[in-house]
Amino acid sequence: MAQRAVSRRLGKINWMFFRLRAVKAALYSRKIGGNLLTNRWKNERRCVAMSNNQIINGVNVTQLVSTIELIKEKPEIADFKFRATNKWVGGTHNRANVKDFYGAGAQDDSRATMTFEIDEPPVLLGENHGANPVEYLLVGLSGCLTTSMIAHAAARGIQIRAVESRLEGDLDLHGFLGLSESAPVGYKEIRVSFKIDADLSPEEKQELIEMAKKYSPVFNTVAKPVPVKVSLAKE
Amino acid sequence: MAQRAVSRRLGKINWMFFRLRAVKAALYSRKIGGNLLTNRWKNERRCVAMSNNQIINGVNVTQLVSTIELIKEKPEIADFKFRATNKWVGGTHNRANVKDFYGAGAQDDSRATMTFEIDEPPVLLGENHGANPVEYLLVGLSGCLTTSMIAHAAARGIQIRAVESRLEGDLDLHGFLGLSESAPVGYKEIRVSFKIDADLSPEEKQELIEMAKKYSPVFNTVAKPVPVKVSLAKE
Repeated sequence: MAQRAVSRRLGKINWMFFRLRAVKAALYSRKIGGNLLTNRWKNERRCVAMSNNQIINGVNVTQLVSTIELIKEKPEIADFKFRATNKWVGGTHNRANVKDFYGAGAQDDSRATMTFEIDEPPVLLGENHGANPVEYLLVGLSGCLTTSMIAHAAARGIQIRAVESRLEGDLDLHGFLGLSESAPVGYKEIRVSFKIDADLSPEEKQELIEMAKKYSPVFNTVAKPVPVKVSLAKE
Repeated sequence: MAQRAVSRRLGKINWMFFRLRAVKAALYSRKIGGNLLTNRWKNERRCVAMSNNQIINGVNVTQLVSTIELIKEKPEIADFKFRATNKWVGGTHNRANVKDFYGAGAQDDSRATMTFEIDEPPVLLGENHGANPVEYLLVGLSGCLTTSMIAHAAARGIQIRAVESRLEGDLDLHGFLGLSESAPVGYKEIRVSFKIDADLSPEEKQELIEMAKKYSPVFNTVAKPVPVKVSLAKE
């Protein structure tokens, strides 16, 4: 389905679900007093009053809900393919490009090309032309956990003021250098520590973290085994 | 061990191992005629003749060999910790920084801060402020497989003229959106296709690919499960 058709469907569905959620919000706040759910729905009714598009944490929740309903009707819309290309420059320096992807039933080539320099520091034979590959992995992981937390909090009407995280991963070079058959070649462990500024108790913030992990594509790509098929292009 | 001490040790060991490899190269080319190993060592003797530092594919193989010998003496030098920090900007936009790391027995804060904008395209609620997290993962994977191939080829004296790769990963949003308990939340599969320009047969190029996979930290981090611990910072 072309993305313009998707947008028109979203427009039609928007109003219908906006009204449904406003009704749900009113009902919930009367039934359940003084807990997270009530706060969540009170916030939502305030946002609902402001515009047709419900924006929480900068996320268009109206569009999110509409997308979910569209996917329930047409599951194939949820199939996405993300891409990158890479060209070796010299030594440990190579360069990756990201531009096109496939999703919501259509190819998308609308974005300008995003270019990333990849290298190693001198202690690992490089010249610091860019961050190294395992650091790029941490960049992706940090972004994914954050977006997953923000989007799912928004869908539940949870307002967040600020989020920061620090990540660290342990790597034993015995694996990369082929010096040990038992040392893991990849990260041994990655630790992520979040600071969340929101009117939530520590337990409620911990729930946000669990939600971030559960729904983060990069977290799940790292924490679980994912098949990676590497082959020679046909000449 | 301070990194300056490591560099002085590398200097002393360089000459010794440079001579050892030159001797090995001469012996191999007489014993084994006309196969990859001979070509490999012939190339190496030509490089050996040129300078004290043996550079193949832009990789300082002399430094690589020295590093390996140092690690055999002091295994803890191989323990590295890579880091990133992330700050949410708004909506699906957040920003990651990479600067310091730990390795070879010391903290390293020498690099300028590298900043990465992370966002989603509009169809996924974003505004294209940067590549999205799962694309950053492909960037890291592309760089790691390339560097792993180049470095291990260099260590074996295999000259490569050019390397390019194309990557594609399949993502089903049912997982991210919480619409299905059975859909994987992470990538379902990632495919990498390499073009290698070198005086090698297709079988020899396939060996390079197997070597890249075996020794790539990001490949192994994705293909195998890696523990990721996410917690709330102490306030």
